[in-house]
Amino acid sequence: MQLLGCDVAALNTVHFSNHTGYRQFKGTRSTAQEIRDLYEGLCQSHLTDFDVMLSGYAPSAAAVEAIGAIGLDLQRKAESNPGSFFWGMRNPILVELPANGERSTVLDPVMGDQGRLYVNDDVVPEYKKIIHHADLILPNQFEAEVLSGIKITSLSTLAEAITAIHATYSIPHVIITSVRISLFSSSPEATTDSLTVIGSTIKSDGSPRLFRVDVPALDCFFSGTGDMFAALTVARLREAVFAADSTLRSTKSWVSPDDVKATDLPLAKATVKVLASMHSVLERTLEARDAELRAAASAEETEPGLSEEEKQKREYLRRTKAAEVRVVRNGRFLREPDVEFQAQEWKKEDLPEGLQ
Amino acid sequence: MQLLGCDVAALNTVHFSNHTGYRQFKGTRSTAQEIRDLYEGLCQSHLTDFDVMLSGYAPSAAAVEAIGAIGLDLQRKAESNPGSFFWGMRNPILVELPANGERSTVLDPVMGDQGRLYVNDDVVPEYKKIIHHADLILPNQFEAEVLSGIKITSLSTLAEAITAIHATYSIPHVIITSVRISLFSSSPEATTDSLTVIGSTIKSDGSPRLFRVDVPALDCFFSGTGDMFAALTVARLREAVFAADSTLRSTKSWVSPDDVKATDLPLAKATVKVLASMHSVLERTLEARDAELRAAASAEETEPGLSEEEKQKREYLRRTKAAEVRVVRNGRFLREPDVEFQAQEWKKEDLPEGLQ
Repeated sequence: MQLLGCDVAALNTVHFSNHTGYRQFKGTRSTAQEIRDLYEGLCQSHLTDFDVMLSGYAPSAAAVEAIGAIGLDLQRKAESNPGSFFWGMRNPILVELPANGERSTVLDPVMGDQGRLYVNDDVVPEYKKIIHHADLILPNQFEAEVLSGIKITSLSTLAEAITAIHATYSIPHVIITSVRISLFSSSPEATTDSLTVIGSTIKSDGSPRLFRVDVPALDCFFSGTGDMFAALTVARLREAVFAADSTLRSTKSWVSPDDVKATDLPLAKATVKVLASMHSVLERTLEARDAELRAAASAEETEPGLSEEEKQKREYLRRTKAAEVRVVRNGRFLREPDVEFQAQEWKKEDLPEGLQ
Repeated sequence: MQLLGCDVAALNTVHFSNHTGYRQFKGTRSTAQEIRDLYEGLCQSHLTDFDVMLSGYAPSAAAVEAIGAIGLDLQRKAESNPGSFFWGMRNPILVELPANGERSTVLDPVMGDQGRLYVNDDVVPEYKKIIHHADLILPNQFEAEVLSGIKITSLSTLAEAITAIHATYSIPHVIITSVRISLFSSSPEATTDSLTVIGSTIKSDGSPRLFRVDVPALDCFFSGTGDMFAALTVARLREAVFAADSTLRSTKSWVSPDDVKATDLPLAKATVKVLASMHSVLERTLEARDAELRAAASAEETEPGLSEEEKQKREYLRRTKAAEVRVVRNGRFLREPDVEFQAQEWKKEDLPEGLQ
């Protein structure tokens, strides 16, 4: 977000030595009280004039509640100026990394039924309490299933899930990251290995306005891409809203009038730019990763006394490090994306009957 | 540093709601154990291949010791590859903000005898223990006095102080930020209001290689500029070292051969770029600050029941916020500085007798 020129106040909910994809880390989690104290510190010095809040992982139900209270307070402060505050919520629910840590997915660590919840059981109800205050959520496919109660096995059930999320939680903007349409058994697109991002901004009658963007899948597991996607999306969404008709920015939750079609939505324009940026960054990450692994392979083995288990662990750590997303080195692709993949309307036959 | 393309692992020693220039804040300080744990987490996953470490404020003597141990461990790991690790040390000693919070200085919150130590008394001896391991330090004028034991009242005594710092602590690179030469009573330059940055890279006989860069002072107190200066300097120094003769990057502490004159030093080239960036960013900050204060003045007073004391406090908070440095919005000036102020050799008559 800073690379896009956003002034960011980061309220850390964890202080870890590294991301959890390494399967080992040290550090501490913020308590709910620490989160509340930091926000109180901002309030007492009148430093809460935020345009956007992006909330993410929280380590406990109490922390979710504390973050929810911050979002609600900022919404309350902005009440008299519709559109002056926007809340994007990342990770309404969190799912565990697959055990092998290596999957071919460009956008999110986990999808579909391979995911397992890795927060305490009491966190999910707490998330469900605050989620209907969000202006935008960005669940992955598995999280969308948990939220909607609908098993996603086709584009049609996916559309139903988004409709349900709009309706059940009154969330105006939804983006589902990392849909693998080729894995849908009935899909005629089963041969192409691409990732699809599905988005929708609600219409005044509560129905979804669906668009999709397809990007080629890259054969690598990257950590942190979900966070990157969410951060870029809120920044680009605000930009697109401010580039649209001037009434939109002072409309609650930035919901476009019904006559704006799906592919012309600010959310669609934002998604297209974000995916262009991410595809460029991840392509370059893949190149850098391969170069790093080649260099490691040709380097001498310095510690010959390692057991087989230790060697495997070392190799896993090396591969994880090599796949760290090269964000800052590729900042220009964030600032100036080369758009290659456009937003598309859904085909009528992909929609469930009620939406055709 | 990220705007310049550096991949940064930030180890936070405090978690505060805002900078202390607001005179009130909430949050926590990291304990020495927490600092050690985070570093251990990096070590266990082999994530310690840092090119540069920039250490800064530490909240206690134990924290200084913990940070010192990290720097020493990284130096030990790099021992067999001279030049592969560089340690810049910001704030060898920390001084209190002046009570009025409003001073005309471009680079550092405090200078000269207005400063008072604001760390516990036991922190200074701990800093003095680790400081001789640093490759670069960036004290302000007051800190340079404390370190050298020499009262700086003229260019000549300033040169003596730098010579003493090189000699006493064996620190190869020294930059003194924010020297107000116009305040030296004997100065013929007393009429011009400029700030001078003095730098030196040691020669093989232990003598300094002094350069100076003068920039116009801006009439505003900015917080955080010392940190910004230090961060940009280490990034630009590494860049200048890698642009120089290829043996320099594999020379311990990146000390240039004796035949490189002061103004051709990588440290001088880095300083020139950093000051160009900072001057542009601070000029734009000043404009944005004035616009923000004008807008606040014309806005209606929303809470008329405030006491005089509360009004003054509110006004102070507003002015402090308005003077927050606009870094990310002006990222292009960091990436592509317009160099206007060049490094100069010292005049012979400004040097103490021993160095003439």
